[in-house]
Amino acid sequence: MKSKFKKGMKLWEKSQKIISGGGQLLSKKPDFHSPNYWPTYYKKAKGYKIWDLDGNVLKDFASMGIKSCTLGYANKELNDKIITAINKGSMTTLNCFEEYELAELFLDIHKWADMVRFARSGGEACAIAVRLARAYNKKKNIAFCGYHGWEDWYLSSNLNSKKNLNLQLLPNVQIEGVPSNLKNTIFPFNFNDIESLKRVLSNDIGIIIMEPYRSTKPDRKFLDYIKKICSKNKITLILDEITSGFHDNLGGKHLELDIKPDIAIFGKAIGNGYPISAVIGKKEIMEKANNTFISSLMWTERVGFSAALNTINLMRKYNVQNHLKKYGRLIKKGFEEISKDLKIDLNVGGMDSMPIITFDKFNDLTSTLFTQKMLGHNYLANNIPSTSFAYNKKIIGNYLETSHDVLKKIRNIINSKKELSKNIIGDPKLTGFKRLN
Amino acid sequence: MKSKFKKGMKLWEKSQKIISGGGQLLSKKPDFHSPNYWPTYYKKAKGYKIWDLDGNVLKDFASMGIKSCTLGYANKELNDKIITAINKGSMTTLNCFEEYELAELFLDIHKWADMVRFARSGGEACAIAVRLARAYNKKKNIAFCGYHGWEDWYLSSNLNSKKNLNLQLLPNVQIEGVPSNLKNTIFPFNFNDIESLKRVLSNDIGIIIMEPYRSTKPDRKFLDYIKKICSKNKITLILDEITSGFHDNLGGKHLELDIKPDIAIFGKAIGNGYPISAVIGKKEIMEKANNTFISSLMWTERVGFSAALNTINLMRKYNVQNHLKKYGRLIKKGFEEISKDLKIDLNVGGMDSMPIITFDKFNDLTSTLFTQKMLGHNYLANNIPSTSFAYNKKIIGNYLETSHDVLKKIRNIINSKKELSKNIIGDPKLTGFKRLN
Repeated sequence: MKSKFKKGMKLWEKSQKIISGGGQLLSKKPDFHSPNYWPTYYKKAKGYKIWDLDGNVLKDFASMGIKSCTLGYANKELNDKIITAINKGSMTTLNCFEEYELAELFLDIHKWADMVRFARSGGEACAIAVRLARAYNKKKNIAFCGYHGWEDWYLSSNLNSKKNLNLQLLPNVQIEGVPSNLKNTIFPFNFNDIESLKRVLSNDIGIIIMEPYRSTKPDRKFLDYIKKICSKNKITLILDEITSGFHDNLGGKHLELDIKPDIAIFGKAIGNGYPISAVIGKKEIMEKANNTFISSLMWTERVGFSAALNTINLMRKYNVQNHLKKYGRLIKKGFEEISKDLKIDLNVGGMDSMPIITFDKFNDLTSTLFTQKMLGHNYLANNIPSTSFAYNKKIIGNYLETSHDVLKKIRNIINSKKELSKNIIGDPKLTGFKRLN
Repeated sequence: MKSKFKKGMKLWEKSQKIISGGGQLLSKKPDFHSPNYWPTYYKKAKGYKIWDLDGNVLKDFASMGIKSCTLGYANKELNDKIITAINKGSMTTLNCFEEYELAELFLDIHKWADMVRFARSGGEACAIAVRLARAYNKKKNIAFCGYHGWEDWYLSSNLNSKKNLNLQLLPNVQIEGVPSNLKNTIFPFNFNDIESLKRVLSNDIGIIIMEPYRSTKPDRKFLDYIKKICSKNKITLILDEITSGFHDNLGGKHLELDIKPDIAIFGKAIGNGYPISAVIGKKEIMEKANNTFISSLMWTERVGFSAALNTINLMRKYNVQNHLKKYGRLIKKGFEEISKDLKIDLNVGGMDSMPIITFDKFNDLTSTLFTQKMLGHNYLANNIPSTSFAYNKKIIGNYLETSHDVLKKIRNIINSKKELSKNIIGDPKLTGFKRLN
């Protein structure tokens, strides 16, 4: 098979032999998109376009850097600031003053919070938040909903049942190497499902960690119950805004939802893809950092702080979030029209800036086929596009037109009762993060 | 008191109010150097010089970015490569090909290793190594020596005794928020102390994690015993080379010590201060990544890979390690001469590239006084300088001359039986990382 992604797939094959896991992020593996026909690697990116190893120029409507690059790729205004920071030295024996400015900016946006702490990855920020909450709350056990990284405290939820992470992360995810001693320290509940939370509360829960908005909008009743039970049981509430934050609005999504956490966690969009994450919270909890040891050299490096400071300032300057929502609504409306026109039952949901398109007949086969046929038109695409300031109406119009054509072909294959698998190049994708569907 | 570091100390005061812990790294706090008289923040750095907020230009003989910036600050040849990577997009929905090239480079340098995994901070790399080792080895308990970060798996050693981390990290370090369930999963032993290791081996130890070279040279007998017991008890040996690696030689210090680990961990110097860390190891262990979940978006970002790839290539091109050793030997020799000349009992040790100067009379008071008097001459200095390619013979000569003058004054104060504390501006430093002394 002469593939348009020959070099990319070849490098992926080689990488799997010398990189443990093939790469550093599960959802950047071709297996989760189209295992044998996926560009996998890039050479260059600008705006919403990616140049792969095979010379293809791809328009990204898949995730814009797993939802991190809301300003667009290689944003010049941001990069000019980063380059200045680099030329002035990104690491020394002393601290960079930007960490203070960034802390002030976070607290200006989130008036309820008193103090900030920074790390580099989302997983680290979650672990710091949990450490501080456990240092503060007398009850150490956690009820959780959603995805919160790869660290022991989180994965240990599967020690009780192999199914505990099925709805939150991956079906039957293996957790070898997580200490069995952590059994019965963390318990899952489901989003918008009050009863599922009630069922785990008896486990001496002192901490709740959850995403404020996942694929579906939070019910008012659900949020009100969370508020009530946190207050009644003196539970420390951590909102993980790593994905939801700085997309629909400048700050945590919780600012629009009338729910105040004790701690909130940010990552992804705040640095437009440069590694930086943040934990913000109430003084009495954040000060617990003085009674425990949380410290890392790499968290002091300047590029991360400069990236977040300038990304958020640019978001403010250009009302970026308004554009993201506008583009996301255009995408949602477009798929609703496609659904009517083609008489296929597409459902459209998700936050405005991050639409989720579901389709009763969208399974691993149809998803793979959609991705492959879009790749044929040089689009990186799946059912969870993430919007970017690099888009415009025309770009979105073209994307919707191509999606229409591709979905029409898929509908025709389905309606003709032909075997879908015969239309797929190589294997269909693995079932990915449940939360993304 | 009109301090030469007025702006820096003012910002530190403000930071402590809104940043949990004041900053992100313990050893960048003024408390660990000179609590009330320390620049704390920088604006610009180049070569071995740092420009602070108060307009002082300081020559860094303290740690060159906590031992990370061996090429020197804002190295132009490295930064040109980083800036190219940034202009070509540092984050996308796809992976950057540099991760493969960096993996190949690590395996070329460490022929015993088969596979690599990357993260951003040293703490993350340690947690990944421990996860993989625990996934691989039937016995899950750990014997450790040295400093390995802030995460639960490590700090939990203090659940058994508040003194367990005294010799490894900090005296009486508090570990609030670390799950008590992790008690009896990790046990300390002391460097070069075979008996201390023997005492903990009965705790079903399957993993040993240690630094191959700390303040003192490892005894041959000690290393031979480690080798013997790992082989006999089927223990997985992890060497933490975050500090020791890529300083005396191009690669892990273990390459010079005739001890082969199952896993080795790198950070700090490999990226010249840009956040990147690496775990390398044997295939059968590294492949355990497929039976557990280790994944983070921020680990895929391009700057970290580009930084490590180009830093290591520049190290090779210029024989940087030879220069570091040469400079370190000059420093050691210089302090030996000072010791003789002033008739003070200085002891000189440490790896050649990272000298450690100890002094029977060096306590928190004399250390603070040394740092403060060196600051008077615009030197950032302590007893653990780390060498850099930005030094040269003349620069080191000047530093030694100033050190001589300062130590002479301190000796005279001590000999005159005057109260040392009266010569100190503000408070003396807190006792820092034990390992650093």
